[in-house]
Amino acid sequence: MNQPTFVIHLESALDGTRLDANLPHTMHRERPLWVRYDLAAVRRAFRKEMLRHRPHTMWRYAELLPVAMAEAVSLAENMTPLVPCPRLATHFGLAADCLWIKDESRLPTGSFKARGLAMAVSMARRFGIRRLAIPTAGNAGGALAAYAARAGIEAFVFMPADTPLVNQLECKLWGARTYLVDGLITDCARIVREGRERLGWFDLSTLKEPYRLEGKKTMGLELAEQCGWRLPELILYPTGGGTGLVGMWKAFEELAELGWLEEERRPRLVAVQSDGCAPLVRAFEAGERFARPWENASTAASGLRVPAAVGDFMILDAIRASGGTAIAVREARLTEWMRLVARLEGISLCPEAAACVGALEILGARGMTRPSERVVLFNTGAAQKYVEVLAAELPRIADPSRVDWDQLEAAAA
Amino acid sequence: MNQPTFVIHLESALDGTRLDANLPHTMHRERPLWVRYDLAAVRRAFRKEMLRHRPHTMWRYAELLPVAMAEAVSLAENMTPLVPCPRLATHFGLAADCLWIKDESRLPTGSFKARGLAMAVSMARRFGIRRLAIPTAGNAGGALAAYAARAGIEAFVFMPADTPLVNQLECKLWGARTYLVDGLITDCARIVREGRERLGWFDLSTLKEPYRLEGKKTMGLELAEQCGWRLPELILYPTGGGTGLVGMWKAFEELAELGWLEEERRPRLVAVQSDGCAPLVRAFEAGERFARPWENASTAASGLRVPAAVGDFMILDAIRASGGTAIAVREARLTEWMRLVARLEGISLCPEAAACVGALEILGARGMTRPSERVVLFNTGAAQKYVEVLAAELPRIADPSRVDWDQLEAAAA
Repeated sequence: MNQPTFVIHLESALDGTRLDANLPHTMHRERPLWVRYDLAAVRRAFRKEMLRHRPHTMWRYAELLPVAMAEAVSLAENMTPLVPCPRLATHFGLAADCLWIKDESRLPTGSFKARGLAMAVSMARRFGIRRLAIPTAGNAGGALAAYAARAGIEAFVFMPADTPLVNQLECKLWGARTYLVDGLITDCARIVREGRERLGWFDLSTLKEPYRLEGKKTMGLELAEQCGWRLPELILYPTGGGTGLVGMWKAFEELAELGWLEEERRPRLVAVQSDGCAPLVRAFEAGERFARPWENASTAASGLRVPAAVGDFMILDAIRASGGTAIAVREARLTEWMRLVARLEGISLCPEAAACVGALEILGARGMTRPSERVVLFNTGAAQKYVEVLAAELPRIADPSRVDWDQLEAAAA
Repeated sequence: MNQPTFVIHLESALDGTRLDANLPHTMHRERPLWVRYDLAAVRRAFRKEMLRHRPHTMWRYAELLPVAMAEAVSLAENMTPLVPCPRLATHFGLAADCLWIKDESRLPTGSFKARGLAMAVSMARRFGIRRLAIPTAGNAGGALAAYAARAGIEAFVFMPADTPLVNQLECKLWGARTYLVDGLITDCARIVREGRERLGWFDLSTLKEPYRLEGKKTMGLELAEQCGWRLPELILYPTGGGTGLVGMWKAFEELAELGWLEEERRPRLVAVQSDGCAPLVRAFEAGERFARPWENASTAASGLRVPAAVGDFMILDAIRASGGTAIAVREARLTEWMRLVARLEGISLCPEAAACVGALEILGARGMTRPSERVVLFNTGAAQKYVEVLAAELPRIADPSRVDWDQLEAAAA
């Protein structure tokens, strides 16, 4: 196995201990690891202009990644668009040309989880690992199942029994050994932890290995490039395990060190949770660096149903460093916000992303947005994967030769 | 309303009658219309090199489209990747580097229908049309609902009562007036036809207005560009209404006239249907130009459940001109092919696309593929939108503190 070109070592996020990047690692003293690069060397080797001729995938930022495209386990991770949302902006008192949704549902498997798992599975294959396991709220399991199949590696997936049906079925389709667990994601995580020793699994839990974070980092790299290296003022991000938020912050730090950003200023990061499971919001408001586990976690936004995040301090550090905040929105209103954005903009948000719409409302009410600020909201997955949340009854025409036209007309009015 | 730059007129696909492109049209004598361009002028104005600086969306081919990006109703229709399928190729006796899946599930609304509806709704808005209606097997309804919401235009959607649940729910989410009809898509089409006069709907049925075809054409333009203007030898396409197949053929014709193609040769087009509804295959085999309606149409691949296609002769003309064929595969094996591709390649195919995998098997058995030929198979939508087809029972762990490790180990073996 060759040392990746610009990676120099792994580093404990809590105490800075350095570990050899040539060996597979999970955590250090039960806390996550950063992948560190020789950024001075990257700065010499990598110039913005080089991006012009690279494929429009997350692998275009090769010098800032642990694995090159040629070596990657890939399903073609196309860049995701920033979709302008003029009506939604106006609805919340923002300037019409200042709000975008970064639509991660366009990725393989229909969610942002593809980024992290493509990277983690690529690294696992490089290290010769043959058995992967993951606890999941839904989309991460699907993504692991797909990339493990692509790599020809065995995958075990453990999900709460009330995980969205589509996630259950897609894992099965891709051939992962998939189990429904009567419990929360933390119970699934415990099974995976035990299986490491008992059955030789490699644990791909969020932030329990260092490479999913590097995959998620590409959200930040892409966003920076799409904004002409002038980052937006505000980023709203639905936060469960928080890898995306932490990954984006790492991306901005690395880009700053490369001298690629047009301004010193960083975006204010807003971590959004549901009031049915808001451990990070509670810790943020209490001024704490570590978050106590949330009791009786419950939300239809399955990706937010994470009562305890192993990277809690990384998330809270990033939010605070950015001058941002953490906001819990009302669980009962998630579908209302999904409908609002679908009808105003034609964009179908997953319930996790809908929480960010609620946060936009709260930020406005608190005077924490300014009309001219550029705001980016992340749609982390396809709404279509949440049939339980979308559930609705449609009117029926039992006899197509006898349509009640007056009723149809009245319905339209 | 301005005349679009390079469009010169509309032309009846059956008898060549010309119609004014400045007016909204549906069909001419119950048969579809082509949009015709001044290709000599396009040839002077449009050069391949210009694509280098254009956005990676379907709007990059502006000179060959009826509407420019600035005027379009768009949700950011990113180009879709060609995902290499080395293991699937080997499985079917093809060279490992000769088979790709063009993954249309990456588009807005999770299907290829986004291309056609983005274009049709853009044109409808330009013509000032305020009420759109569509009969749908599923994904077209979803796409119309999304683009109509984006445009702020009213949409009526009529779908058979057994349309996939996700399609029903997404239409409702986007605010379309959505009705379940006890009948087939042909019954839905009749309701829409009646509603034109009764309620002033504009009929967006497949090929009953000329612009969905122009949207679908971008599949062929994209494919040509992605293949370096050297088209693949074989294209496998799941064929219901057939707009995609006809649109690609039109794209190849137009590119040839621009002198952009590296070779005279065109791909052989293979229209794939299920033996539960195969009117085009029957007509192809009988040497007929028009297809008799299929009786008791029934297939889990809802997009293929089209017993009578208004563009039947356009599809059959294109297949024959290409030296291709039409193949019906066994309905009962659709899920087997979905699993095969999911497990070999990590790609989740919709059941319609799975039919193309079956066709690959048949083509091989008939000696109609050569190992060195480049084959492209279209995945027209996200598998995740077909929960009914994916249905499966997963094993359950009732007590997470008492896992049966021996059983887990045995399951893996």
